[in-house]
This record gives sequence, structure tokens and C-alpha cells, in this order.
Amino acid sequence: MAPKQFSHVYIDRVLDPAFQNWKKHFGKASLRVHKAHLCMLDETHIVDGGAAARIARGIVRLEKEFFPPARIPQGVEDLYFLFEKALAEIEGEEEAAWLHTARSRNDMDTTIFRLVLRERFWGLIDRLCGLLRALRARCEAGESELTVLFTHGQPANPSTTAHYLSALVMDLIEDADYMLRALEDADRSTMGACAITGTGFPINRARVSHLLGFEKYIINTYQAISTSHWLVSCALSLQNLMIDIGRFIADLMHKASSEVELYRFPDELVQISSIMPQKRNPVILEHIRIQAEMVAGECESVADAFRNVPYQDVNEDADLIISKFLDTIEESASVLDLVEETVTKMIADTSRAREICAQFGVTTTELADSLVRIYGIGFRVAHRICSEFVSKGYAIGALRAAFLRETGRKLDISDGEIEDLLSPETFVRVRATAGGPAREGMREVYRAFERGLQDIKDELSARMNCWRDADDELDRCFTSLVARTQG
Amino acid sequence: MAPKQFSHVYIDRVLDPAFQNWKKHFGKASLRVHKAHLCMLDETHIVDGGAAARIARGIVRLEKEFFPPARIPQGVEDLYFLFEKALAEIEGEEEAAWLHTARSRNDMDTTIFRLVLRERFWGLIDRLCGLLRALRARCEAGESELTVLFTHGQPANPSTTAHYLSALVMDLIEDADYMLRALEDADRSTMGACAITGTGFPINRARVSHLLGFEKYIINTYQAISTSHWLVSCALSLQNLMIDIGRFIADLMHKASSEVELYRFPDELVQISSIMPQKRNPVILEHIRIQAEMVAGECESVADAFRNVPYQDVNEDADLIISKFLDTIEESASVLDLVEETVTKMIADTSRAREICAQFGVTTTELADSLVRIYGIGFRVAHRICSEFVSKGYAIGALRAAFLRETGRKLDISDGEIEDLLSPETFVRVRATAGGPAREGMREVYRAFERGLQDIKDELSARMNCWRDADDELDRCFTSLVARTQG
Amino acid sequence: MAPKQFSHVYIDRVLDPAFQNWKKHFGKASLRVHKAHLCMLDETHIVDGGAAARIARGIVRLEKEFFPPARIPQGVEDLYFLFEKALAEIEGEEEAAWLHTARSRNDMDTTIFRLVLRERFWGLIDRLCGLLRALRARCEAGESELTVLFTHGQPANPSTTAHYLSALVMDLIEDADYMLRALEDADRSTMGACAITGTGFPINRARVSHLLGFEKYIINTYQAISTSHWLVSCALSLQNLMIDIGRFIADLMHKASSEVELYRFPDELVQISSIMPQKRNPVILEHIRIQAEMVAGECESVADAFRNVPYQDVNEDADLIISKFLDTIEESASVLDLVEETVTKMIADTSRAREICAQFGVTTTELADSLVRIYGIGFRVAHRICSEFVSKGYAIGALRAAFLRETGRKLDISDGEIEDLLSPETFVRVRATAGGPAREGMREVYRAFERGLQDIKDELSARMNCWRDADDELDRCFTSLVARTQG
Amino acid sequence: MAPKQFSHVYIDRVLDPAFQNWKKHFGKASLRVHKAHLCMLDETHIVDGGAAARIARGIVRLEKEFFPPARIPQGVEDLYFLFEKALAEIEGEEEAAWLHTARSRNDMDTTIFRLVLRERFWGLIDRLCGLLRALRARCEAGESELTVLFTHGQPANPSTTAHYLSALVMDLIEDADYMLRALEDADRSTMGACAITGTGFPINRARVSHLLGFEKYIINTYQAISTSHWLVSCALSLQNLMIDIGRFIADLMHKASSEVELYRFPDELVQISSIMPQKRNPVILEHIRIQAEMVAGECESVADAFRNVPYQDVNEDADLIISKFLDTIEESASVLDLVEETVTKMIADTSRAREICAQFGVTTTELADSLVRIYGIGFRVAHRICSEFVSKGYAIGALRAAFLRETGRKLDISDGEIEDLLSPETFVRVRATAGGPAREGMREVYRAFERGLQDIKDELSARMNCWRDADDELDRCFTSLVARTQG
Repeated sequence: MAPKQFSHVYIDRVLDPAFQNWKKHFGKASLRVHKAHLCMLDETHIVDGGAAARIARGIVRLEKEFFPPARIPQGVEDLYFLFEKALAEIEGEEEAAWLHTARSRNDMDTTIFRLVLRERFWGLIDRLCGLLRALRARCEAGESELTVLFTHGQPANPSTTAHYLSALVMDLIEDADYMLRALEDADRSTMGACAITGTGFPINRARVSHLLGFEKYIINTYQAISTSHWLVSCALSLQNLMIDIGRFIADLMHKASSEVELYRFPDELVQISSIMPQKRNPVILEHIRIQAEMVAGECESVADAFRNVPYQDVNEDADLIISKFLDTIEESASVLDLVEETVTKMIADTSRAREICAQFGVTTTELADSLVRIYGIGFRVAHRICSEFVSKGYAIGALRAAFLRETGRKLDISDGEIEDLLSPETFVRVRATAGGPAREGMREVYRAFERGLQDIKDELSARMNCWRDADDELDRCFTSLVARTQG
Repeated sequence: MAPKQFSHVYIDRVLDPAFQNWKKHFGKASLRVHKAHLCMLDETHIVDGGAAARIARGIVRLEKEFFPPARIPQGVEDLYFLFEKALAEIEGEEEAAWLHTARSRNDMDTTIFRLVLRERFWGLIDRLCGLLRALRARCEAGESELTVLFTHGQPANPSTTAHYLSALVMDLIEDADYMLRALEDADRSTMGACAITGTGFPINRARVSHLLGFEKYIINTYQAISTSHWLVSCALSLQNLMIDIGRFIADLMHKASSEVELYRFPDELVQISSIMPQKRNPVILEHIRIQAEMVAGECESVADAFRNVPYQDVNEDADLIISKFLDTIEESASVLDLVEETVTKMIADTSRAREICAQFGVTTTELADSLVRIYGIGFRVAHRICSEFVSKGYAIGALRAAFLRETGRKLDISDGEIEDLLSPETFVRVRATAGGPAREGMREVYRAFERGLQDIKDELSARMNCWRDADDELDRCFTSLVARTQG
Repeated sequence: MAPKQFSHVYIDRVLDPAFQNWKKHFGKASLRVHKAHLCMLDETHIVDGGAAARIARGIVRLEKEFFPPARIPQGVEDLYFLFEKALAEIEGEEEAAWLHTARSRNDMDTTIFRLVLRERFWGLIDRLCGLLRALRARCEAGESELTVLFTHGQPANPSTTAHYLSALVMDLIEDADYMLRALEDADRSTMGACAITGTGFPINRARVSHLLGFEKYIINTYQAISTSHWLVSCALSLQNLMIDIGRFIADLMHKASSEVELYRFPDELVQISSIMPQKRNPVILEHIRIQAEMVAGECESVADAFRNVPYQDVNEDADLIISKFLDTIEESASVLDLVEETVTKMIADTSRAREICAQFGVTTTELADSLVRIYGIGFRVAHRICSEFVSKGYAIGALRAAFLRETGRKLDISDGEIEDLLSPETFVRVRATAGGPAREGMREVYRAFERGLQDIKDELSARMNCWRDADDELDRCFTSLVARTQG
Repeated sequence: MAPKQFSHVYIDRVLDPAFQNWKKHFGKASLRVHKAHLCMLDETHIVDGGAAARIARGIVRLEKEFFPPARIPQGVEDLYFLFEKALAEIEGEEEAAWLHTARSRNDMDTTIFRLVLRERFWGLIDRLCGLLRALRARCEAGESELTVLFTHGQPANPSTTAHYLSALVMDLIEDADYMLRALEDADRSTMGACAITGTGFPINRARVSHLLGFEKYIINTYQAISTSHWLVSCALSLQNLMIDIGRFIADLMHKASSEVELYRFPDELVQISSIMPQKRNPVILEHIRIQAEMVAGECESVADAFRNVPYQDVNEDADLIISKFLDTIEESASVLDLVEETVTKMIADTSRAREICAQFGVTTTELADSLVRIYGIGFRVAHRICSEFVSKGYAIGALRAAFLRETGRKLDISDGEIEDLLSPETFVRVRATAGGPAREGMREVYRAFERGLQDIKDELSARMNCWRDADDELDRCFTSLVARTQG
């Protein structure tokens, strides 16, 4: 039979791009799958012990000697066929073919993709934990940094950098938690599902899954091959993270704007305009926004790619989209790096915070609350008194007059005490109930942070250790299999 | 001060639509928040016991007598102001105002939205559990229904309805699990966060959270008001579900097409063409596709609405988007109803499955595997023999000849035995490893299903019971508070 | 034959919702299609003249007497079947059936949907023209209103309200142009395409198209039924508009923020906080953002609903999605109303603009340019001189010293002249090249606006007049057809 | 002043990636902008003739000698600063700086991006025209290829390959038309807008626009810098195209499936399964679907990146997103190549079409219509007669009996004539009204195709010629400017 010739367009636009993706991303994982499957075939005696050992030796040789060409050769479908051919040349076609017993390209490919995605996504979660730790340190450094928080774009309450940033931190912990949860679906072996219905050979699916460090294997063989959760869930969880980061950056851009300037950035993060010498653009924030937006868009794109795609083995979860998604993961790491750089280096301007508080009278609500607490008057009357105080330009005399008129009583606290009630520091200090900006309020926030981050790190370590232990075990098994040929 | 007049456009396009949304969806939850907050204010003595009791009595009266007008009156911002005014008319403005101590529209609103979203989303998950149970029954009924499964649109392997549907079921269980996980973020009280920084009053945040049946409260007060997870996560988890359903329906449309016809539908689900009497359109499948697509799009829309929106209190998570999302939840219930109707009533055509198997020789791979197992020959040679068998039109003579030539041995099994090896029933029966279509393979699938569904139902019940218990407790507390006025 | 019974779920979740959509939106357009088709059947003698006249009379009667029930009756597929049955009761089934000659539900439905979409979308473009006209008036009122324009969130250049708003106006004109272009694909008759391949009857497709006021008909009969451009293009063009409005509002929110306050809003557009008396929230801007975001999301949803949907007659472009899109069009009108209300009523604060200019030295670039023009020095040296001026706190002495040192020449203009060169008014006045903020620069902008708006209004009028003329012609033809029965 | 040091993270994650994008894509266009701007500065005497000539000579030298480093050096913002510095080293800083008179990075960058986008997008439209031409040829070759068209997944009508494909062709022409329309907004010079408000120098904006081959320039200077139409519109028009291709491929996958097999593919486009020798996967179709989906997603991503981004100069339309979009354009070309390869090489199976027609009785509607036309009976009665014919298994006797019973008349045509009326060839032949599959019906389709394609090619040529002529003119002007230094 003459070797099959593929159309040039098909080679240029489909086969070769896939070949490049496989060479770049999936070679190492392929070898682990070959090894784990072969160990299992040997242990279950599906393949004769001697043959298994010889195939193992061939794999070891190819590990060193197999160098795929720059471009896919005519007539070849993919990297796997080249590898198979090389193995056949060493071991003889007949014996080499035993390696492919009780497996299919379907279960191999999806297992390989999962192995690679898992490793990169764990890496990203680990990077996120680093960011969380850095943000935590910035919170602590910012416990006494007065700032102003906004609602609907208007200055609302004084607070601290610690209180502000720890809100973001707690949201990011939830994001990390989603990401771990999403990855669970990727952290599943599909080996043994073969094409879609498993096999008649007495395989041990749990064993292959274990040797590859998976938490479990997907039981239903059709689901194993057809499901897209493992990819879509990861994409959606990343989109979630990027939306949160995008929201935080939009807020920080406002706080860092030249008119608000609650936070500034050092020179190393600022660009100047070629035409306007006086401008100091913190465009780093804009770049985070853009990069986060593109990641969010790419994640949506992955999810949408499965719209109305038949629930079958399809190539949507094959090399093209996975490879693009691996790039997206790398872009996400860029976003996290930039957020860390920005937040850890931003400089709070406490006096500017005080200025905004004074200008917009944002502590007046606390004065009203204090009047309620001190004098036992109603909320509405206190509100009315303070509204008049505001409308009279914060004149203390007006406040005393209004108090007298509305309550029939004298406001018997000193001007100094009134000013203290109006200071942003008092505002913050009295907000001591759980989660408020006062030191006591923040204590519970930190506790929740530590608990949350520890849970994530524990789960991440547990999973990554499981994977490393499995790697060691696979190496041991495979080495002893190879050793048998030398006895 | 003359009452404030709002612009007509603003009333027509913003205030009144919001008023309608509040009347339709959020009235009942608002009352519970009033009650829980008042009980806490009473218990912590922030509000004097007598006043608290009188306000409670006023709330009870308004529960029966407060009827908001059809359209928002000029000068009124929202339903809440009308309620507040009505309460002030009963209790006197001064005393009524105590109800609003140590809270704000910000924490009230987001708590109310969460209460309503939680209830509806739990309802949807409950509906999904019902669907899962129905699908499980359909699996059992379909254990012996032979079908054909496809890969990349090509007939690949014989299998059973049970094996096929249980793959979907397992994916849906994962979806349900995501939905529960996503809802956790909504199942948090935000009361006590007040505007954004909490309050100086000695409130008990845990108590209000408990009385409203929340699992926890969000500690950081700024996060409590600014976070969008509770809405975005629910939307993304629902999108995930709809993508899976969309994929299943795309596959089922192929299986139900007039050329494939592995499944048919009863007359009650089929429409006929006005011009082509012979057509039997199972357009129900198309309608599921469309409805699922629209839900998926609406979910994306919710998530995208937060793009670049400052991390502050914003109206993106207020009545407009929530109300639309409540509609989306109802549309999702429609999708689930239609899937249940379709899948439980679809009729498998086992003889058609057998026909497709024969026509496309999809069992040939099993013959090759059997030759490997019986004769210990290699996979590739078996493959070659079977390829020749196929190319010679499935002539058994050709098979024997090829076997002899390739292996040098005689194929010493009878024609009947060969035909049996080629039968779809044998194909299914031998696939007995975990998750395969054989009865033994399916056993583990069912176990995983039962475990998965039970976990979901347990968590759902736990949460819903907690909520109902809290409702009872709140009623008791509030009733005893009201009773105090009658002492 | 017993009347067909549909499943209750199918009725509740598919048939009845569709029935409601049809009653609400498509009844009137259906009648026009019946009439136009009947006139053509009569004119081409496909239907006998007497029968045509009697059917026409029946239609007239049903126009007054046909009242569909509140809910779809069991056994009925849709509104059309009820109408058909009612006509058959009047005319006799045999004769009534002639109305359906040489047409199908397929071509009727898509023609009806196009008629309705066209009318609503034209209405929206007309509304947009109204907004453009109002924005134009606001530009004129704001020709001398000094403002500050920003780049990357930093104050960059002084300008005027007219210059700023007219940029938006020109973008909106491009949006309107897209919308008109998109609607062209909807403004096509599909009648005569029948199911998908036309008919053997000697119909006159152009005639029906003409009587329904369409610009053309879609020639290829399969395309006529299967294409989704008419809906997707309209959705994408609306998304385009909403993205632009969203960007403008994001910018205006910054300009209207309490720290920038280049624009303020009258009381009728502002809400106050229940707890913070000093806050004036222009939340109308936030509501525009949210409504625009939801429209954008719904438009994306429409486009995405066609992903991987076979290029056939499908229900994606049937009543469910169209009806939702009609709601989206109405929501878009709300956005336009709110933008008009906001922009026409916003109040520029020219003194605040002057203050920002002074504070951030945004006119320094003009000083540098002036030095280049007056003294013929290089751009870089002028830049250097001005940078020093800025860093020395805008001290004119420092400017003179730097000029002397860098150029070896004396800066021989007076302090007053220097201050004038630094004034925002000068900055604006000298920018007189095409499209700049000076009066001469704006002249060309207005010309482009007038030309652009006129083109849109001309095309819109032409199309709408064509439609109204066709309506008149159809009424005449149909009336004369009916009259024949009374002769 | 010590040279500025940027943070390493900022260099790695922002500056260097941008530097790589600029080197890869935008170098050549930058030079053209320098040249055109310099010619204008010289012609308007804003820059002294001698200096202009010397700067021109410097640019020519740098064209040959300027080699940017592999990685961005510390302290450098971007490629432009390096180029500027190199020019200053040749010409002296003072003189070199004149090149930057009356322009800014803002107007330069967006003009450069537009030049590059325009060229690539024109290239893509040209590629699409090639595909249209190839599809047209495939239509002609397929005029007598009988096929079956489906509605809602059900076989509906016989037709021809020509009729089927030409429907797609007409949709693609509309897509090409949108793409051209969208590109109009990119085909606009922004030079002279400078930062955002133009300049006080007496520049000639029209001249620069003309020398760069733009159709027009954007008049309002703020719009010129802030608008995102030029990018968003192109993205949306490409999304539109991909949705259409996706729909066609979804339909073709059905027609090419093993059960339908109306079209087959040659071996060079087909992959085989490693485990199932009998499968012939036309996975090329799946790859088109996936690639088209990813392009559609990336286009949406571009549009969504502008959500809530202030209407200012922002980096969303700078190098990162543009560069990604240039990749998307290349991926679109891959989709078009694969569609052409697939459609031109697909092989129709006319006998299979005939078989499907017979099996599903899809020509029965034509029989009904014929009875109406021949015997003047009503449509409903004909429908009823034919329904009975179908339900009696297409027995001609049953047809005659039903006809007699329903009409009281004898069906006086021969069995042969009846069979002829039922043949797919007759079905096609009688559908001769405009746009139907008969030869006469198709004539108007071809005419529309030729007109549509010619319009697109004319506009494309006009624009591309205008650009090439401008290139020549710019070269002449610039060469004569350089020549002046050598006089």
C-alpha cells in the first residue's frame, strides 16, 4: 500500500500546527502515560513479562534518542505515530504493538492533556497563594494608613489600607477555592476508557490512575472521553478571578487618579508623556486591566467553544484549545505578577485621606451615630441635626443650635470632643465590630484569611505531593521493569 | 422643604422599574430582614425594649395593611422609603427611626437579594436532583437497550442506553456540585456591614445571620458590600450546566435524526409539518437547545456586566440584574423539565442499533482484541487481519485466510463463534471493567451516582433545614417581642 | 382521527409561551402577510378570483372577530392553526386552504419576524437620531464651556463641552450607520421561498415583497429560510452602540465624580443616601452603565445562540429569541432616553476646569509649542525649558532663566503674555486646525455631523416611506379585492 | 539626571512584550508615518526645508542601519524612543526633534495600528473573495448534483449542490460586505489629532492622510484618539463571518456523516482511527468548527475588552490587543483555506440523495402541489390525499382511491406520470421561480452573486489601489526631499 498522502492545506492548517503543539507541550506527559500503562499491563499479565521489559527498555532508549523533525512529514498524522514507528523499529512491530493493548488515542490524549493542564493550573494557584501572602503583608503594613472608601463613585467612609485590601484578599481566596474545585475535574485519569467503552482486557484502571498521581479516575468510560468539565470549569474559575481583579483595578485607578491620589506609585512603575512633562501615568494599572480583560475573554472563548458541540469525543478538548489555554494561564501569571508589584509598592497618602474626609464631610454619619449613642435620641433627629450642621458649612455653633431646637437639650460636649467625634481616626476606631476597620474588627478578618489561605495551601500541597509521590513510584516501577531485561 | 421632584425620564426608566421589581420579588425578604435586625437590636439593648416591641407591633400591622401603589409616586425613591414612612405614621417618626440604627440600605439590600437568590437557586438545584433521579430510572430501564455511541460524528461502539445516559448523569452531578459550591457565596449574611465599614454600635452580626438562616456572615464589611461573587459564581455555575445540556441535546438530535433513529419520541412530543405530512419533527430537542443557549447567554451577560466595574458598592448587583437572573433561573427550570420529559419518554430502537453496528462494522475492534486474547498474537497483526476482513466485505473466509497468512496458524474457531465475537451483545458483555457498559462495569457507575446524588441532597437538605429552622426561630423571637407590647 | 394530544410539559414550556409571544407581537404582521400573499395569488391567477375575494372577506371578518384564547388549547400547535381553523369555519375548509398555496410556515414566519423587527429597529434608529439632535444642541450650548479632557485617566488638555460631546456624537453616527446597514439584511422579503426550495406555482415574489414594503427579496430560497444575518447583524450593531455608550458613561462618571466635578447634575437626577446626608449620588450614570451592559450582553447572547447551529431552517430565529430581542430594543430605548436626559441636563463647571488646568499644568505643552513657534527653537529644547518651569513650581523667573541658559537668548515676552500663553482659553483658541476645539476647528466637525445625520435620516425616511407607501398600496389592493365580493 | 530605572516585573510583563510586538508588526508602518508627517511639515514650512531634508536623510540611513536589540534595554520605554535616540545621534538632538513637531505618540500610534490592521484585513477580504470564486465554481460543477436539504434536522426537499452552496455564498457575500464596511472606520488617518486636541501649528491633516493612502481622516481630534470603532467593528464583522461558517460546517457534518453521506471526501482529507480500521473520519470539518469557534471567541473578546473602559485614549486599542487580533486574522485565513479545500473537494453522492428522497417521501409535497395545479383541487384536500398515500406505504392504488373518494373524480394520469411527479428531478425542475433550484431559478442567484462579488472586488480594488498610489506618491515626495540634501 502506497503511503497515504494528505492534502497540503490539511497539513499546513491542521496536522502541522497540531504537531508543533504536541512537541511543545505534551511530549513529557506522553512518556509518563506510556510508562504507567505499560507497568499496569505487566502487573496484570495482559502483556507477557519479557515483552513488557523489552518495550520498557525501548521507551528508555527513545527518551534519549527520539527527535521529531521540525515539520510533520507527509503521510504522518501526528507525533504519536512517529513515536510508535520508532519504537517498532527498535522492538519489532509485533512486540511494540503490545504497548497499545487496552488503550486508545482517546483515553491517552485526554489523560495527557489533563496531566499538563493540572500541572500548569496548580502552578497558577500556587502563584496566587504567593500573591495572597504578599497582599497580607501589605495589609499589615497598612493598618494605620488612613484611606477613603467610595460607594457608587462617591467618597463614603474613612477606613484603612488594611481594611480595603483585605476585602480583595478575601475575594481572591474564594477565587482560589473555585480554581481548586474546578481543577478537581481535571485531576482525574481517563485511562482504560479506551475509545469510549473500555475494553475486554482485565485492566486495572485504578493502578494507572494512581501511578499518574490522579486523585481518582472517571468511572463511566463514555463520560471519561466526552466530558468537557475539566477544561470548561478551569476556564470559568479563571474568568471569575479576572473579573475580580478587573474590578479592583478599576477602583484602584480611581484612587490613584491625579484628582483623588489616595495612592501613588514609585517612579519605577510610572511612565511619562513625550509631550506633557507634568504627567505621571500609572499605566501599569491600565495594562493589568487589559491583560485581565483578555484573559477573561479567552476563558469565555473556551467555554463558548463547546456550545452545541455533540456530547461525544470531539477535538474541542484537544491540542488546539488546550494549547491556547496554556498560554492564557501564562498570561494570568503576568496579571498576578503585575498586581503584586502594584499593590505592594503603592504608597498611601494619609493626609490626602484626611483632606477628602474633611472636604466631603464623610464622618458626619459617625457624629449622628454618636449623638444617638450619647444622648439616646433617635436616628432621624440626629440625622436632621447633622444635615443642618453640614448645610451650615460644618459650623459647630449651628450644630449646637440645631441640637437644642430638635431635642430641647443642650449639647454638653466640648468643641474639641465634637471635632474628635468628626475625625477619621475616631470613625475608624469605633468600628470595632467584626470585620470593621478598627484593630479589633480586623482581627477576625485576619483569622479568616489565615484559615482560608491555609485550607488552600493544604489542599494544594496534598494534591501536589500525591502527584510527586506517584511520580517517584512510577519511576521505581518502571526502572525495575527495565532492570528485568538486564538480569 | 418642598418635596423633591424627580425627572420624569428618571422615574419612568429607573425608579419605577425598580419599584416594580421590588414589589414583585423582594417584599417578603425585606420583612424578615426588618424582623431579624430588630430582634438583635432588642437583644443587644441598642434599642430600648419597649420601643423595640412597639416597632415590632407596627411591622406586624404593616404586614397586613401596607399596600404599595401601582406606580411609584413622584418624589419617592423606592419601596423602602414608602414602608419607612408608613411605619413612621404608625409609631411616630422618632421611634420608628430606631429600626434603622446600625444598618444601611447597603447591607439590607444585598442581604435581601441573597435571601431571594438563595431560595430560588436552591429550588433549581432541587429540581435538578429530581431530574437526576428520573434519569437514573431511565438508565435502569435502559440497561438492555442496545445503542450505538459515536466519536467525531462517526459510529464507534455499541453500548446501552444506561451506559450512555449515566455519562450525562455523572456530568450533571458535577454541575449540581458546582451550583451548590457557588451558592455558598450567596448564602452569607452581610448585615452589620452597614454602608461599608460597619458601625460603632455594639451589634451582634452572628445573631442576625443566624436568624436569617445564613451559614455564615461575610466578615470584612467592605467585602460584604462590594463583592460580586455571590451573583457571578451562581451565573457561571448555571452556564456550566447549560453547556453540558446543550452538548447532550446536540448529540441526542443526531441519534434521533431520521437517518440514525436510535431513539424515537411519542406523538405527544412531536410536531408535524403543515406542508410535509411525512415529517415527524422532534422540535422539542431544538427548543431545549434554544432555551439552554439563551440561559447560557444570560449567565454570561451577568458575569460580563461586572467587567471593569469598580470594586465598590455598585448597582450591578441590585434589583435590575438580580430580577433578570431570577427569570433566568425560571427559564433553567423549563430546560430541566423539557430534558426530563424528553429523556424519560424517548424510545430506544435496539434493532436499529444492531443494524448500524452491522453496517459500519463497529464491532470489528472487538474481534481484533479477541484474536489477541485467544491466540496471544500482537495487536497490530490482529488489526491487520481485521482490516483485511473489513475490506473483503466481512467475508469469514477472508478472515481465516488472512489469519493463516499473518500468523502461520489456523483460525480454529467456528463461524458461529466468530459471529458471536462480532455481535454487539458480546461487545457490550466483555466490557466489564469499571465504567464499561457491561452489567459489572455499570455497577460502579451506579455506586458513584448514588454517592454523588446523596452528597448533593444531604448538603441541600442541611442548608434548607437550617434555613427553615432559622425561620421558625425568628418567628418565635419576633412573636415574643410583639407579645411584650400586650403584656 | 382523535385530536392530537401534546404532553403537558411540552405545552407549558414550549407551545404556550410561543402562543403568548405570537399574540403579543406578531398578530398584526401576520395579517399583512396573509393579505399581500392573497393579492399576489389573485393577480397571478394561481387562485381563482372569486375564491380570493371570498377569502379576503373572511380575513376582514377575522380581523374584527378573531380573539385567541388566554392559553393555548390542548391539541393546537400555535396561533396560526387557530386562525386557519377560524378561516375554514367561515369559508369552508376547501376554499380557505387556497390561502396557503405556494407558501409555507417557513417563509411566512421569517417574513413576519422581519416585518416586526424592522419596524422596531427603525423606531430605535429614529430615537437615536433624536438623541443625536439633542446632543448637537448641547454641543452648541457648550461651545464656550471650558472643560478638561483626560488620557489614561490623567488630565491632559483643556477643551470645550462642544468638542468633547461632538466626539461622542460622531461615534454614535457611525453606530447609527451600522444599525441601518445591519437592518438592510432584515429588510428583505422571504415570501415565495416556501419550505426551502420555492414552489412550482407561478408566483410573483417581487410583488409580495413590494406590497410588504421590503427593499428586496432574498433570491436563493434556501438562504431565505436558513440565514441568520438579519437577526445577528442587528444584534451586533446594537452591541456596538452600547459599548460606545458604556465607554462614554465611564468617562462621564469620572468627570462627574466629587473630586473632579467638571459636570454636575440638577437635583431631579440625583439621589441622596439615607445615612450620609452630604452625598449627592448621580446614580443615573450607574443605571445607564448597567442597562447598557445588559443590552450588550443580550445582543451577544443572540449572536452566540447561533454557534454551531446547522445552516438549516432552525428555531433560533423564531419567536423566543426574537421576542427577547424586541425587549432588548425597548431596553435600548431606555438607555437612549437616559443618555439624553443626562447629557442635556448636565451643568459644566468652567471654573473647575480652569482650576484643574492650573493645578496639573496641562497647558504647559502649549507654552512649549509657542516657544517653538515664536523663537524657532527645537521641540526638545522647548520641552526641557518647560519641564524646568514645571519642576520649579511654575515660577516665571525660572522659565526665563532656563530659556536663557538653553537658547542663549532672552525670553522677550512679558509675564502677562506668558500667562496668556498658559491660559486654557488660549490653548483652545490656537487649536484651530480641522477638528480641534477652537471655533474654526469645530466648524468642520459640525459639517461632518450634519452630513452624517442627514444621510442617516434620508435613508431612514426613504425606507420608512417606502414601507408606508407599500402599506397604503396593500390596503388599496386588498380593499378592492374584498369589494369584488360585494359587487 | 540618572537614567530612569523601571521595575523588573514591569519590564518583563509590560515593556518587553510590547517591544516585541512593535518589532514584529509595526516597524514598517512607523517609517511611513514618519515620512508622510515629515513631507507635510516641509510642505507647510512648519519645519525649515534644510532641516527637513537632513532629517529625511537620517531616516533613510536608519531604514538600513537601525537594528533594535533582542530585549528592551533598562530605562527605555519602547521602540520609538530607541529610534528617536538613534535619529538624534545622527542629526543632533535639536534638529531631530523637529520631526516630532505637531504630532504625538497618540496620533502616531493609532495611525500606525490602523495602517497595519487595514493591510491585513484587506488581505483577508481578498482571501474571502478567492473562496467565493472557488465556491462559485463548485456551484457550477454541482448544478446537476442532486442532494437533499434538511429543516430542523429532518430531510425536507431535494435540491442541488449548486442551490445549497450558493445560499452559503450569498451569506458570505453579505459578510464580506460587512467586513468592508467595518474596515472603513479603520481606514481613517488620525494624524494631526496629536494628543487629543490637535495643535496650534498650521498643519495639513488632509495631506498626511492622503500620503498614507487613507480614504479620509477623522475630523474631531478627541474622537480620533478615543474611538474604538475601527477595531471593534472589524472584530464584530469577523465574528459574523465565523458564525456563518460555523453554521455551514455544522450542516455539512450532518450531510457528510456516515448515516447520511450525501457528500464524501477524498482520502487526502480523511483520517483513520488507530483502533477502528473501518472508520473514515472527516475530522477536517471538526477542525474548521473549532478554528472558527476560536476566532469567533477571540473577536468577542476584543469587543468585550472595551466594556466600561472610559471614552479616552486608552491602551485597549494599543499593541497587545491589536497583535492578538492580527493573529486572529491569520487564524481566519486558515479557516477560509480549510473551507475551500473541503467544499471544492467534496464529492456528492446523487444516488444517495435519490435514496433518501424515496425513503422519507420528501417529494410528496410536490405531488400534492401538482394535484392542486392539474385538478384545481384545494391544497388541504390534496394534502389529505397525499397523507393517505404516505400512510399506505406509497401505494399508487391507495393514492387513486383517496383521490376518488376526496374529489369524486378519477385520477386520470398514468403510474409513470405519478412516479415522474414524485421524482426528485421533477421536484427540482418545476421550482423555477426566482431563487429555486431549477436552472431558471438559479440564473437570478448567479446574477446576484456576480453583482455582489463584483461590488466587493471593485471596492476592495479601489481602496487598495488608492493605498498603492499613495505609497508611490509618498516615495516620490520623500525621495525628492532626501535628494535636496545632495544638491
